[in-house]
Amino acid sequence: MEYLERLGRKAVEAKFVLQELTCTVKNDVLQKAADALVKETARILAANDKDYEIAVQGGMSEGLLDRLKLTAERIEGMAGGLRQIVDLEDPVGEVMEAFDRPNGLHIEKVRVPMGVIGIIYEARPNVTADAFGLCFKTGNAVILKGGKDAFYSNQAITEVIRETLAENCICADALQLITDNDRAVTTAFMQLKKYVDVLIPRGGAGLIRAVVENSTIPVIETGTGNCHIYIDEDADLQQAIPIIINAKTQRIGVCNACESLLVHEKIASRFLPALGAALQEKNVEIRGDEKVRALIPGAAEATQEDYGTEYLDYIISMKTVSSVEEAVAHINQYNTKHSDAILTENAEHAEKFLRGVDSACVYVNASTRFTDGFEFGFGAEIGISTQKLHARGPMGLKELTTYKYMIRGNGQIR
Amino acid sequence: MEYLERLGRKAVEAKFVLQELTCTVKNDVLQKAADALVKETARILAANDKDYEIAVQGGMSEGLLDRLKLTAERIEGMAGGLRQIVDLEDPVGEVMEAFDRPNGLHIEKVRVPMGVIGIIYEARPNVTADAFGLCFKTGNAVILKGGKDAFYSNQAITEVIRETLAENCICADALQLITDNDRAVTTAFMQLKKYVDVLIPRGGAGLIRAVVENSTIPVIETGTGNCHIYIDEDADLQQAIPIIINAKTQRIGVCNACESLLVHEKIASRFLPALGAALQEKNVEIRGDEKVRALIPGAAEATQEDYGTEYLDYIISMKTVSSVEEAVAHINQYNTKHSDAILTENAEHAEKFLRGVDSACVYVNASTRFTDGFEFGFGAEIGISTQKLHARGPMGLKELTTYKYMIRGNGQIR
Repeated sequence: MEYLERLGRKAVEAKFVLQELTCTVKNDVLQKAADALVKETARILAANDKDYEIAVQGGMSEGLLDRLKLTAERIEGMAGGLRQIVDLEDPVGEVMEAFDRPNGLHIEKVRVPMGVIGIIYEARPNVTADAFGLCFKTGNAVILKGGKDAFYSNQAITEVIRETLAENCICADALQLITDNDRAVTTAFMQLKKYVDVLIPRGGAGLIRAVVENSTIPVIETGTGNCHIYIDEDADLQQAIPIIINAKTQRIGVCNACESLLVHEKIASRFLPALGAALQEKNVEIRGDEKVRALIPGAAEATQEDYGTEYLDYIISMKTVSSVEEAVAHINQYNTKHSDAILTENAEHAEKFLRGVDSACVYVNASTRFTDGFEFGFGAEIGISTQKLHARGPMGLKELTTYKYMIRGNGQIR
Repeated sequence: MEYLERLGRKAVEAKFVLQELTCTVKNDVLQKAADALVKETARILAANDKDYEIAVQGGMSEGLLDRLKLTAERIEGMAGGLRQIVDLEDPVGEVMEAFDRPNGLHIEKVRVPMGVIGIIYEARPNVTADAFGLCFKTGNAVILKGGKDAFYSNQAITEVIRETLAENCICADALQLITDNDRAVTTAFMQLKKYVDVLIPRGGAGLIRAVVENSTIPVIETGTGNCHIYIDEDADLQQAIPIIINAKTQRIGVCNACESLLVHEKIASRFLPALGAALQEKNVEIRGDEKVRALIPGAAEATQEDYGTEYLDYIISMKTVSSVEEAVAHINQYNTKHSDAILTENAEHAEKFLRGVDSACVYVNASTRFTDGFEFGFGAEIGISTQKLHARGPMGLKELTTYKYMIRGNGQIR
């Protein structure tokens, strides 16, 4: 498609400009973009009103309407996000390794921008500013494809940032937004391999599946989290309930929320009645195996499908197990390689769990809700990778870079 | 497909066994596998004879026949490859980072095996032993799909290694070979995402394209190299000719061979006649622009297509340019992001080239032929990545690993 080819070519032109920018220049532009977003609040809100009205007419759910809605405060928050990125260390240019070969070649492994990053995302319009900020700070050009529900909002935010770039004599094409909402264009974008170095989908399981299936560009898969907590026979049961309640209910719609519990059968009769009551008090529906149902009044039956489901809702599945090995095996069968936790005071069991569970983040005695770039201290987050290639778990600025080898010689031949 | 599902499930079972093996056990098995290959030379050669005969009857070219052919010496070489892997450091278990959060969480980033690696490769049967050795040392299960030309050879090598694994009470499914040569099976293998963590194609451009287009498993793209050398106006012209001859002719069929030269116009009349003669003496056909043709008798005309071609043959394209910037722009338009070199005594030009050229390996005053895991001192090589995700350039053992975060707490909640 000529439209996408043009976007791709412009992004490549921009990437060569961006990779040469100093950190000072990048920070200055990020500050100015933050100021511009606040200054243009009225313009952005007007665009957002259009999206909101269309969404209301289309019968969008309350939850999604809330995600879509911008306010002066939320725009201030977006600007604040860009200002936070200013404070982060620029990873570009870091010499990761340097070594000399016997033949005299001096080899340096140097951190460089990816080049052109594509991001496909859903409703939330703040991702537009956020994704730009992270990509820009790491010297990458970015092509965004937002959800059509936030079409006008995304366009307004993009325009404001592009104006700032142009005013500061930085190639405005450092940030481009695909404004053609035809599904075929989105699919073609996933195949713009000639220009785009990496594609990051941010959104629900359906979006991520579509990207994985259609993209010829290397993808970083993010997001889906069927997270487990295993309560070991040697768990501190006082500590267990607050952790489980936090992991399940502190925020139900997020990928690091707990969706399934495994309970050692030895503690089931002591622990499950109290746990069940605590969860039910928070309006969490419980689906469990026979032993669970016998100990928690009102618990429904859990199917195999339940064990594989990321509910993102006030529902939790529960199963009793007879050992840490059984817990690990169950988790490795049903999890999404995101975040899983063991609660135990037994160091040997903790070690088995940490080594055995195949997830990006494996916890001992803590809530799974900590799988997050900010909670990890990265100061930012572009997403949580659930694949093993390139990055795993929370991705900050470093994960938006790659490296190249710079090799200096004086006439070496083989 | 039930066949592939079964292979996938077995590989996953094996990966959980492999990730627990100590380095000592892995090294011991590698030694024994090397011994077994040598001991079973007759059996492997008999299988190879079958492949060879079919290939001769099918009219395979001399070059490919030579790649396919095994001898006692080549089997000894395969065994030697496994023994070399024994001497390499095991990267698994390395604590890459460790930090404490203000809330008391202790976070460790620990290097772990990828899990299950898929490798699709062409003719050369020694890749079978090699790929097994690298994957096994890094605690990965591997599923191989070799070319049908080496079918019987690959099967014999696999059998010998699997027997060694079984004799040493290691899950034999650490190494599995897909023995169904139906193309549909290979395509389905590329979509075995549920079981395979990363897919590495090793072979020609056609194979790599097919994998990139069809795979839903994360891919590490390897191989194609349209490598350039730019001879700057400030080059040491005495040094330049040996470097170019080495890069072009030391081995013509490899991805780090030089395929295209850019020559600064200021030195063209001084340099090109001598360079042309040196290349022609090595039977290299020259295809150049008008200035090149005026200075090198017998040079043919270069088309745009020539500049984008990886010849893997005694052919080279040549173009004159008026600046290092023009050279960088040309290279970024036509290269495959593999390896490119500048020859110059001018530090500023060298720096511009190193920063500006978007390739895995960028050289100053050396042959592009050094892009190689052994030449880099990695002691091994699974391939040369030309993508930016995960690994770039030569990939050794580390690049067959990923990491996980192990987080230890004492009741933390958000």
